[in-house]
Amino acid sequence: MANRQFNRGVRTGGRSARVRAAILAATFDELLQGGYAGLSVEAVATRAGVNKTTVYRRWPTLDDLLVDALTEWSLEALPVPDTGSIEADLVTLGRELADVLNEGVGRQIVAIVLTAGLKSARLSEATRRYFDHQALRALPTVNQAIGRGELPATCDANALLTAFRAPLFYRMVTTGDPIDEALITHAVRVALNAARAGLLSK
Amino acid sequence: MANRQFNRGVRTGGRSARVRAAILAATFDELLQGGYAGLSVEAVATRAGVNKTTVYRRWPTLDDLLVDALTEWSLEALPVPDTGSIEADLVTLGRELADVLNEGVGRQIVAIVLTAGLKSARLSEATRRYFDHQALRALPTVNQAIGRGELPATCDANALLTAFRAPLFYRMVTTGDPIDEALITHAVRVALNAARAGLLSK
Repeated sequence: MANRQFNRGVRTGGRSARVRAAILAATFDELLQGGYAGLSVEAVATRAGVNKTTVYRRWPTLDDLLVDALTEWSLEALPVPDTGSIEADLVTLGRELADVLNEGVGRQIVAIVLTAGLKSARLSEATRRYFDHQALRALPTVNQAIGRGELPATCDANALLTAFRAPLFYRMVTTGDPIDEALITHAVRVALNAARAGLLSK
Repeated sequence: MANRQFNRGVRTGGRSARVRAAILAATFDELLQGGYAGLSVEAVATRAGVNKTTVYRRWPTLDDLLVDALTEWSLEALPVPDTGSIEADLVTLGRELADVLNEGVGRQIVAIVLTAGLKSARLSEATRRYFDHQALRALPTVNQAIGRGELPATCDANALLTAFRAPLFYRMVTTGDPIDEALITHAVRVALNAARAGLLSK
């Protein structure tokens, strides 16, 4: 295990990387099935087909494991569209996000942020990194739109992303109705309208 | 207990109403302290100073109890402001909502909706009723603004409420940073801008 520091983040490769990936995937599956309240190192180890001590060696606590599973998931979660139109780009992003939120994944993760995140600074930090990362990935999309003259030069990528994603999350946490095409296109129109009115500028 | 059906919803009155109020308040306090995962009829009864059987007689299951506690809370939760300006009305509503969401109450309730709500149709229904009720209460505020010429006549109260509340909930479920005055006034401006552009019409 001497080289485990170097394997972090490597997706293919030696046995160590495969074991890590299997354990993180098992953590995610357990989370989806039973939520945070039902998560245990025992169940994760069984599902991943490894010994409990293999889990504990890398992740001394359940929160350590969860932070890594969430980080791994968040880095792979959403693509960066480039359709040539900011409206179509945002609709594409919205559809991808809707897939995550309409399934149990988004619900369970948000529930963790709301409850466990209150008690664990590291979990809160992992969530914050996820959203910072999302904003960074949206930067080229927004910059290209500015370049095409679709958005004011002062438009803030994070503010635009927040404005258009908020109604999608809102539906998930309120009525829980599916996030559909009508909601996505509406959220995009409202966000672009705000951006063009200069309300989402730096 | 013959008249207990008639006491439902009565806030003051006989011993039966007082016991009911004490049990619902205890349910809420337990929920805030330990979340849904830690909720038990035993703990609620102890906190309310009643026998477990007193709880079970009215609420056969924990979900029954939770549905009533959430309903009671939601009916009293938010005021209907009437400042004479839709912008100030919405900012007032936003501050009240921020108080709820910045404390643990909002977090725990949303977490329940996201996890337990998946399994309990009655809990989902109670949440939906809460949001329907919120939209109904906002109707006079929006109608008065339409009457004053501050909003287009076609403006939809529910759409306006959703547009302005979504960024507040979004912050709670993402970074978890406090919902502050800057966010509230910004959300109100974006929502009013959308309404005036005809994007929140029926």
